[in-house]
Amino acid sequence: MDNPAERAPEHQGDSLKERLWRIIFLSESGAARTFDVMLLWLISGSVLVVMLESVVEIEARHGELLHAFEWIFTILFTIEYALRVWVVRRKSRYVFSFFGIVDLLSILPTYLELFVAGSGHFIIIRILRLLRMFRILKMVHHMSDANILVNALKASRSKIAVFMFGVMSVVCIEGTLMYTIESRVEGSGFTSIPQAIYWGIVTITTVGYGDIAPVTVIGKVLASVMMLTGFAIIAVPTGIVVADLHHEMKQVPMDTRKCDGCGHEGHDSKALFCKMCGHKL
Amino acid sequence: MDNPAERAPEHQGDSLKERLWRIIFLSESGAARTFDVMLLWLISGSVLVVMLESVVEIEARHGELLHAFEWIFTILFTIEYALRVWVVRRKSRYVFSFFGIVDLLSILPTYLELFVAGSGHFIIIRILRLLRMFRILKMVHHMSDANILVNALKASRSKIAVFMFGVMSVVCIEGTLMYTIESRVEGSGFTSIPQAIYWGIVTITTVGYGDIAPVTVIGKVLASVMMLTGFAIIAVPTGIVVADLHHEMKQVPMDTRKCDGCGHEGHDSKALFCKMCGHKL
Amino acid sequence: MDNPAERAPEHQGDSLKERLWRIIFLSESGAARTFDVMLLWLISGSVLVVMLESVVEIEARHGELLHAFEWIFTILFTIEYALRVWVVRRKSRYVFSFFGIVDLLSILPTYLELFVAGSGHFIIIRILRLLRMFRILKMVHHMSDANILVNALKASRSKIAVFMFGVMSVVCIEGTLMYTIESRVEGSGFTSIPQAIYWGIVTITTVGYGDIAPVTVIGKVLASVMMLTGFAIIAVPTGIVVADLHHEMKQVPMDTRKCDGCGHEGHDSKALFCKMCGHKL
Amino acid sequence: MDNPAERAPEHQGDSLKERLWRIIFLSESGAARTFDVMLLWLISGSVLVVMLESVVEIEARHGELLHAFEWIFTILFTIEYALRVWVVRRKSRYVFSFFGIVDLLSILPTYLELFVAGSGHFIIIRILRLLRMFRILKMVHHMSDANILVNALKASRSKIAVFMFGVMSVVCIEGTLMYTIESRVEGSGFTSIPQAIYWGIVTITTVGYGDIAPVTVIGKVLASVMMLTGFAIIAVPTGIVVADLHHEMKQVPMDTRKCDGCGHEGHDSKALFCKMCGHKL
Repeated sequence: MDNPAERAPEHQGDSLKERLWRIIFLSESGAARTFDVMLLWLISGSVLVVMLESVVEIEARHGELLHAFEWIFTILFTIEYALRVWVVRRKSRYVFSFFGIVDLLSILPTYLELFVAGSGHFIIIRILRLLRMFRILKMVHHMSDANILVNALKASRSKIAVFMFGVMSVVCIEGTLMYTIESRVEGSGFTSIPQAIYWGIVTITTVGYGDIAPVTVIGKVLASVMMLTGFAIIAVPTGIVVADLHHEMKQVPMDTRKCDGCGHEGHDSKALFCKMCGHKL
Repeated sequence: MDNPAERAPEHQGDSLKERLWRIIFLSESGAARTFDVMLLWLISGSVLVVMLESVVEIEARHGELLHAFEWIFTILFTIEYALRVWVVRRKSRYVFSFFGIVDLLSILPTYLELFVAGSGHFIIIRILRLLRMFRILKMVHHMSDANILVNALKASRSKIAVFMFGVMSVVCIEGTLMYTIESRVEGSGFTSIPQAIYWGIVTITTVGYGDIAPVTVIGKVLASVMMLTGFAIIAVPTGIVVADLHHEMKQVPMDTRKCDGCGHEGHDSKALFCKMCGHKL
Repeated sequence: MDNPAERAPEHQGDSLKERLWRIIFLSESGAARTFDVMLLWLISGSVLVVMLESVVEIEARHGELLHAFEWIFTILFTIEYALRVWVVRRKSRYVFSFFGIVDLLSILPTYLELFVAGSGHFIIIRILRLLRMFRILKMVHHMSDANILVNALKASRSKIAVFMFGVMSVVCIEGTLMYTIESRVEGSGFTSIPQAIYWGIVTITTVGYGDIAPVTVIGKVLASVMMLTGFAIIAVPTGIVVADLHHEMKQVPMDTRKCDGCGHEGHDSKALFCKMCGHKL
Repeated sequence: MDNPAERAPEHQGDSLKERLWRIIFLSESGAARTFDVMLLWLISGSVLVVMLESVVEIEARHGELLHAFEWIFTILFTIEYALRVWVVRRKSRYVFSFFGIVDLLSILPTYLELFVAGSGHFIIIRILRLLRMFRILKMVHHMSDANILVNALKASRSKIAVFMFGVMSVVCIEGTLMYTIESRVEGSGFTSIPQAIYWGIVTITTVGYGDIAPVTVIGKVLASVMMLTGFAIIAVPTGIVVADLHHEMKQVPMDTRKCDGCGHEGHDSKALFCKMCGHKL
């Protein structure tokens, strides 16, 4: 999210280019924050336009207006992209970075429409504009609460991967069992093993659409066992995140005492001496 | 909930007005609590009447009776409103406060029915009577358990907001993907991006109505990934609240005894001697 | 669960009646545990018979057999009831206790069938036999793990009540809003406010049957907000139980040191002196 | 998972047989890990083939290819099985172990197809190949994160069993009540008590397919109470796992340094001085 290369010390000057760089790539000054918020509104607006265009009735009635907005957003994003390329020092590095590609992809489709007839084919590329949403997540960087959340999720990553592997194994086996039991029944939704695994995922995550549901007695018994197991299993990822989050939050200093000797803060509440310099608290 | 202006020191006297003020606005004395409980029953009763009026069969058979009750409740609430306006010192402050407006809105519609024919149009206003339910929440103020809950929720607010923002971003992107995949299929429920986002929310929260469900193979695979991710994500708000609640509960002193020998606090509630110096507590 | 009156010290003798009392009402000796396990099997069996009788096809084919089993279980439960009344000292106290009434109600219906034709009317009473299941929960008493669970739930009781009150208020208001929005649409499931509240509960608990689902755009937006809120709210009861359970488990001694002075165990892991007698550990 | 008999000290030599044993049964050396990963891919591939064969359209078009792959996997698994039997010392012990039987069952069905016509009957046996997935779980053994998870689940086992027993009792009673209420209604899904219990499990686990849903007013009220209760109950297994996981994670030493001055342990990992006596660590 925070490309260190873009925070290079060479950008410490005061020229227009450098000031723009600070506004666009950092979010420390007031102007930079205004820029971020404006960008957030622009992105939200363009996302809304893409959404509304997909509704047949709205497209039919306000298609012209939406198209106009589409062009306004595209031009603004083009200016933003040009500015980014201009102010950044290592241009190729930005252009080929994840967000550089996202920035390009979010403006390209509208221009391509001018030349190509079936613009509908580029809907997938236009959707990439949504990826710009993620950019706003860098604002998250400056919120201490978000830091705790992100760290807890990072710490839980490998445990959640192990958990997911286990859940997938269970779902595969149970889906296959359900397929062997249910597939013989007329009009059953369990038409193949992948379909049964899809049902298994819908069930174990407690989503339960009901488009596929067991109809035989044995199928229902097995499904019941699976649901109850899933009910207990749902606790595992929660437990992982909670424990990691709890640990993460403990790191945040609770104690407000400041050492007279070295100025260190964040002592253990039971500490009698500064743990950094040995000075009596 | 607890407007400090209404607890003004000028209300320390003993006249009828002041005694009524104490009964209506505070819930410390026995009379005040009786008033609160009576109000709770009145509100529950009036809510029940509004509910039953909405059931066509009951309205057809017992419409007259419900209408009578409606008027009884309206008159009682009118008296309550008049009393509140009378006893409170800064009248305009109460009248334009949130609960002042709620109190007014909960009696106005019934009177308006006398003059206007289509009373049905005011059902929304009449519903505001339900908002009076919240007033009873001030009773919560006096329960120590509720304090812990409310504080934990307050502490979690900004973290939950960050989390919600993240969930919404994920749902927008996944909804758009599902729309591009599923919308071409005949009879698909994914008729537009907003519809697909609605489906995304129904899925990620594990509600799963089943009114919209993926029908293509790729759609089902993507939905499966989304459900499993949501399964892990559901742990996050839980983790936040648990960690904050845990922290909140720790704040409550478990044992306030202080060792005379070494001044150590935080002893086990069953301890007889200081665990740090062996001095008798 | 554990009526202290039945553990009266007068029952300390060694006669047949007293030995039987120990076997039936306590679960400390081997014979008593055998009795408890046998009772568990009997209850499970009789529950299974009631279940199978409700399945039309099985009743049609094996009705006679099930009826025979019904009588065997009834006679065995009658003997058990007679023994209980005989061995217990304060007979009226047992007979009018919760489990005394359950024991009586679980045998009465079968006898009543002899005299009354339409036995089907007593199905509700016969179901009370299921309540005997709860009696087995007294076995739980002797498992330390269950103690922790039960204590955590007891500690959470008032907080969960406050939480439930809050959830109900939210559901009432949201249900009413949904009713006003959705009820005008042809073929909507939101036919009345109580119906809308039922939908609200189905949604906020993430059950999501799909028998009632919003069809209007505003209805879907409101439902989405409600689901996301519910998603965050679901964390609250979990947080409550986790925090209480965590506290409960901490009470269980972690430290294995035993005081040389008084033999006390379960010291704080940081303790230097025995907290019971002041002896150095 | 980890049969200690297979790790017998007799296998400490360096012959081909012994080296193969180390590669197949242990996963400590690089070659052994390569073998494990290759096996994981083979198993995944064979599982995929079984899955795809179950899809009617794919079987019709690529049946020949899938059949060929089926034979390749079977031959490779046969070689693996033969090697395992050859290198292991106590052959009968391996052959009759859980994974020995799984290994045999995963190759047998394909050979049986040569002799028996209706191979479809052996689909259940062929499914056992999926059980090989579990073998890969031994890789989990070497991940410290998985250890924490597995230990937390083991520690929670008895508490979750108690919880499941309680949930089943509640579901039985509520299912029976729903049956008595709903079964008289025309077209109700509650056709028998077992069916009602199935509904109860679908509901309390918040899966909510919607294939069976209450239609009477009393049924809906009871279902609402049940859902709200289940909503609070869902917190219990989570609480159990969280608390155990938290305990498990605390066991992992954070800092093993001991103060030379006072012997105090459990210092903050960043501390430089003992927080109890001020001595340099």
